[in-house]
Amino acid sequence: MNNYDYYKNMIEENLADKLPSVAPQVQVLWDSMNYSVKSGGKRLRPVLLLACADFAGGNPEEALPFACAIEYIHTYSLIHDDLPAMDDDDLRRGNPTNHKVYGEAMAILAGDGLLNTAHEIMLQDAAGLKEDSEKLHRHVMAALEVSRNAGIHGMIAGQVADMENEGKECSEEMLNFIDSNKTGALLKAPILAGLYIGNAPEAVRTDFEQYAELVGRAFQISDDILDVIGDEKMMGKKLGKDADHGKCNYATVLGLEAAKDEMHSLTEKAVALMEKYGDSAEFFIELAHKLERRKS
Amino acid sequence: MNNYDYYKNMIEENLADKLPSVAPQVQVLWDSMNYSVKSGGKRLRPVLLLACADFAGGNPEEALPFACAIEYIHTYSLIHDDLPAMDDDDLRRGNPTNHKVYGEAMAILAGDGLLNTAHEIMLQDAAGLKEDSEKLHRHVMAALEVSRNAGIHGMIAGQVADMENEGKECSEEMLNFIDSNKTGALLKAPILAGLYIGNAPEAVRTDFEQYAELVGRAFQISDDILDVIGDEKMMGKKLGKDADHGKCNYATVLGLEAAKDEMHSLTEKAVALMEKYGDSAEFFIELAHKLERRKS
Repeated sequence: MNNYDYYKNMIEENLADKLPSVAPQVQVLWDSMNYSVKSGGKRLRPVLLLACADFAGGNPEEALPFACAIEYIHTYSLIHDDLPAMDDDDLRRGNPTNHKVYGEAMAILAGDGLLNTAHEIMLQDAAGLKEDSEKLHRHVMAALEVSRNAGIHGMIAGQVADMENEGKECSEEMLNFIDSNKTGALLKAPILAGLYIGNAPEAVRTDFEQYAELVGRAFQISDDILDVIGDEKMMGKKLGKDADHGKCNYATVLGLEAAKDEMHSLTEKAVALMEKYGDSAEFFIELAHKLERRKS
Repeated sequence: MNNYDYYKNMIEENLADKLPSVAPQVQVLWDSMNYSVKSGGKRLRPVLLLACADFAGGNPEEALPFACAIEYIHTYSLIHDDLPAMDDDDLRRGNPTNHKVYGEAMAILAGDGLLNTAHEIMLQDAAGLKEDSEKLHRHVMAALEVSRNAGIHGMIAGQVADMENEGKECSEEMLNFIDSNKTGALLKAPILAGLYIGNAPEAVRTDFEQYAELVGRAFQISDDILDVIGDEKMMGKKLGKDADHGKCNYATVLGLEAAKDEMHSLTEKAVALMEKYGDSAEFFIELAHKLERRKS
C-alpha cells in the first residue's frame, strides 16, 4: 500500500481528465463543473476508495473512475448546498462558490451534471467488462454502493434531516441520524466500493463498514468542533454557521469537552478494529488518527 | 405488443412502489419526490421503454425498474427547471410546482433524490443478475443509455444551451442542437434501453435510434407550436413562455406553417423507417402520428 499523498496525486491527475468533454455549445457547463471539482480539498473520499481497492489486492488504477465518481458526487453536493435556497454560502475552500461565479441556474445544472456524470462513468466502466462477468458484477456492486449511499437512504437523507431540524432542539439520536447519513454514508460508499473493486471477502467488508461508521462519526464531530473553535482562514469557509442557522452540532449539544472525548473514543474503536489486520492496515490506522487531529 | 394505455397503466401502478421508502425522519423528502412523480403527464418515456422491450421480445415486467427510472429523471428535470433560478414556474400539469409546495431547498433535494434514485434502482436491478452474465451486461448497457442521454451529452447539455441562448437570435443549427439534446436524448434513452433489455439486435437499435431522433425533433416542434397557439387549460401550464423568455422556438424561428410542415415531414420519415417491420411496429407508427396531432 501507498501513502495518502500518493493516492491524492493520482486523483488530482485524473479528476479533470475523467470529466468527459462536452459539445462546444455548452463549454460553460464543463467550466462550471470543473471550477468546483478542481477547487481542492482533502480528496478524502476518493483517496479512501483507492486505498481500499489497493488494500484488498486490486489495482488502484482500475478504481480511478469510481474514485473520480465519488469526488464528483461530493462536489455536486457542495455546489447545491451552497445555493442561496440552501446554506447561501459565498465562499468555499477560500474561493467564491459556484453560483457566485456562474449564477444560480448554471450551478444547479452543474451539480446535476456532476451527479449524473458520476453514475455515467461508473456505468461506462462496467459496460467495458463484458468479457469478465465476475469482475463486471463486482464493479456493479461498487457502483451500487456509491449510488445507495449518495442517495435518499444516505447523503440526501442526511441533508434533508439537517435542514428540517434547523432551529429545533436536537436530540443526540437525531444528531446521529443526520451525521451517519450526511457524512458517514459518503465515507462508507468509497470504502465499500474500493473493497468490491479489489475483491475483498465479505468479512473484510463488514469490518471496514464498521470502521467507516466510526471514523465517519468522528469526522463529523471534528467538523462540528471546528465550526465552533476552528480557524476560518485554514478552513477556507465561514465558521460558526451551525449556530447562525440553528443547526444540530455535536459540540453545542454535548459540550466541547464531551464532543472531544466522544471523537477520541470513536477513533480508538476504529483503530482497534483495524489492528487485527496488522501492518497492512497501517494506512487506515494513521488516517483515523490524522482525522482526529485535523485543523481544517 | 400492447397499446399505449396498457403500458401507461403498468407505469402508473408502479411509479410510487418503485420509489424506495425512506427513513421516517425524512418522510417529507419522499412526499416531495412523490408529489411530482404522481402528478401525471403522458408517461411517454417509460411507455416507450416498455414498448421497446416488448417489441424486441423481452418481458415488459422486467423493464419496469428502468421505465420508472426514466420517468424519475424526467420528473427531476421538470422540478429543477421550474425553480425560481431557472424558468420560475408556478404551475405544472395544472398543479403548483414542487418548490411552491415544499420550498426551494426541498425541491432541489427532491430533484437530486430522483436523479440519484433512478440510477440506484437500475443498478439494484443489475446487481440482482449475478447468475446471468449476458443479461447483466445488457441491463448495464440499458442503464448506460439512460445515464448518457440524461447527462452532460444529452438532456443537461440541451438545458444549458437553451438557457445560454435566451434573448439571442437563434440559428436553425442551434435550435437543432438544443432540441436533439433537450428533448431528443430523453426519447432516445428509453428506446435504446428498452431494446437492450428486450435483447434486440444491433441493426434494430440503429433503426430505432433514428426513429427516436426524428420523433424527438417532431415532438419538440409540436411543443414549440403549442407554446405559441396551444390551450393553457389543456396544457396545464403557462404558455407563450418562449417568447417571454426570448427562448429559441421553431415556430417563431421558422414561422408557424414551416414548423408544421417540418413536423409533418419528420413524422413521415419516422413512419417510413418503421414500415419495414410491418405490423409488429404498428405501435410506433401510431405513436408518431399521435404525437403529431397532440393538443397537450
